[in-house]
Amino acid sequence: MDPAEGRRILVAVDEGDESVHALRWCLTNFAARGDGELAPPDTILLLYVRPTPPTYSVLDASAPLGYMFANEATAAIDGYSRAVADAVVDKAQKLCALHSKENGKVKVDVKVAVGDARSVICDMVDKLGADLLVMGSHGYGFLKRALLGSVSDYCVRNANCPVLIVKSK
Amino acid sequence: MDPAEGRRILVAVDEGDESVHALRWCLTNFAARGDGELAPPDTILLLYVRPTPPTYSVLDASAPLGYMFANEATAAIDGYSRAVADAVVDKAQKLCALHSKENGKVKVDVKVAVGDARSVICDMVDKLGADLLVMGSHGYGFLKRALLGSVSDYCVRNANCPVLIVKSK
Repeated sequence: MDPAEGRRILVAVDEGDESVHALRWCLTNFAARGDGELAPPDTILLLYVRPTPPTYSVLDASAPLGYMFANEATAAIDGYSRAVADAVVDKAQKLCALHSKENGKVKVDVKVAVGDARSVICDMVDKLGADLLVMGSHGYGFLKRALLGSVSDYCVRNANCPVLIVKSK
Repeated sequence: MDPAEGRRILVAVDEGDESVHALRWCLTNFAARGDGELAPPDTILLLYVRPTPPTYSVLDASAPLGYMFANEATAAIDGYSRAVADAVVDKAQKLCALHSKENGKVKVDVKVAVGDARSVICDMVDKLGADLLVMGSHGYGFLKRALLGSVSDYCVRNANCPVLIVKSK
């Protein structure tokens, strides 16, 4: 951590209320407002990971019409995924702005990545030089979590920085 | 959390270097020094959990001598366990004192409990009204961890407060 830069806090946000709660907890309890040169403001790095868009093989398409439909469906799903990402990030940014208004400034940076949340979050910790990773405890739906284990379990084990898990009560 | 009281940070310490690292990280990055009435100092609650002492049934003892030996062995193991607890807690307290000297005061309170680390830590979160639980990622040896899962995994799932896991690099 470079003291002249403040701390870099990576907050993984998703559609769930729990990640909003985690961000709020982090802003209230951890993120420090800047206090001149001696204590520069922390940077909140908001990370939203979009799932990898589904792909349709040409072999799956029985006719050119089917292939076109598959392409359209992919585009529609991709568009929806982008809209969700925008909404989540927008909500998180507003929360940071509200906190800054009440408690002093924090710097905010937004990253939207595509892929498997578990590996993308851990990669981003390294890439962005995060000093702390903050997340809710649920990063997938129930079924996917049962199959893959939770995103937070994976990150606690594999992220190269301290991990703060904030659950909703 | 009562703002007039400062935050209550439960730090689970054990024999491992990782818990020392977790405590140090918490003191440097999270625990706030008091700043008059407006910002009272945080309280660090150092928790060491001693394993439940082994018990020998009278039926196991083939002779009165064997029974006596079992009792003596139990007493010796218990004594050793207490000595380890004292050493761990003493080291942790010294670290807090050193931090207070350099960065301003934090309040420190020590709890030593007996039982299974996983359930005792989660119970203590409720009992002591902790606002945050801090721990290293390894709370058992390799074999026990493989059988039971790690203490930190359990606490992330079950503790009724945010959990910060700090791993050694």
